[in-house]
Amino acid sequence: MQKLKLVTIVAEAVLEERLLRELRQLGARGYTLVMARGEGTRGVHASSWEGPNLRIETLVSPEVAERIMSYVADHYFADYAVIVYCMDAEVIRGEKYL
Amino acid sequence: MQKLKLVTIVAEAVLEERLLRELRQLGARGYTLVMARGEGTRGVHASSWEGPNLRIETLVSPEVAERIMSYVADHYFADYAVIVYCMDAEVIRGEKYL
Amino acid sequence: MQKLKLVTIVAEAVLEERLLRELRQLGARGYTLVMARGEGTRGVHASSWEGPNLRIETLVSPEVAERIMSYVADHYFADYAVIVYCMDAEVIRGEKYL
Repeated sequence: MQKLKLVTIVAEAVLEERLLRELRQLGARGYTLVMARGEGTRGVHASSWEGPNLRIETLVSPEVAERIMSYVADHYFADYAVIVYCMDAEVIRGEKYL
Repeated sequence: MQKLKLVTIVAEAVLEERLLRELRQLGARGYTLVMARGEGTRGVHASSWEGPNLRIETLVSPEVAERIMSYVADHYFADYAVIVYCMDAEVIRGEKYL
Repeated sequence: MQKLKLVTIVAEAVLEERLLRELRQLGARGYTLVMARGEGTRGVHASSWEGPNLRIETLVSPEVAERIMSYVADHYFADYAVIVYCMDAEVIRGEKYL
């Protein structure tokens, strides 16, 4: 078993195309997306927007995980209702995901 | 990066309003909800109910995580088809979630 | 609190019945299923299939988790667009899940 990171992003549905493109550029090789509802912490300048959310997950190396988390914090936290977190995950044949 | 806990609750859809209100009262600052299907362990007195489930996630401090898990076990396990578990999660700017 | 494993499988929707039956045979006592979209690593012989995915989670013992992960890798990775990973999870009254 190899150790990877599962990064989860929850964001407004309108950000789908942009986020998926950026994830690819940051090194993610795949993703799983489900529609969600939610409430939560908002960026200082974010409107109190309510509506469908994306919940996007991607299995990546620790390096790519850190890159994604920093990128999302730097580019979205101020202006969008976005959260991102990362967890340890074990996989078999980890080269599939890298 | 800060360490938080991701608490996940899977429960009958009819419990949505009550669970979300209780999560807030127990200290959660946000949640992500998706509709799910499932089968699984039932409380001793729970009917063999089948239907749509809620899958609710919330990022919280370790203290709030323990409080939520104990509360859900004490108030739901006997009579409802509810599961709850908690996992380590890393976040950037953790004060957003506390 | 007891430590269990949360195993997640993401697979083509057409595999639902087969995967759920196999999970039960491998020792899972329950599951949570959501519909998802995704893109990602494909088996060498897998067609570049696109369509709805299943995201199936199950809370199991470490032994059952390993059994499921090996089984899925051996039986699906070559021919299907399937991923599987496992994470540490803490539960209360863990005997509920075993």
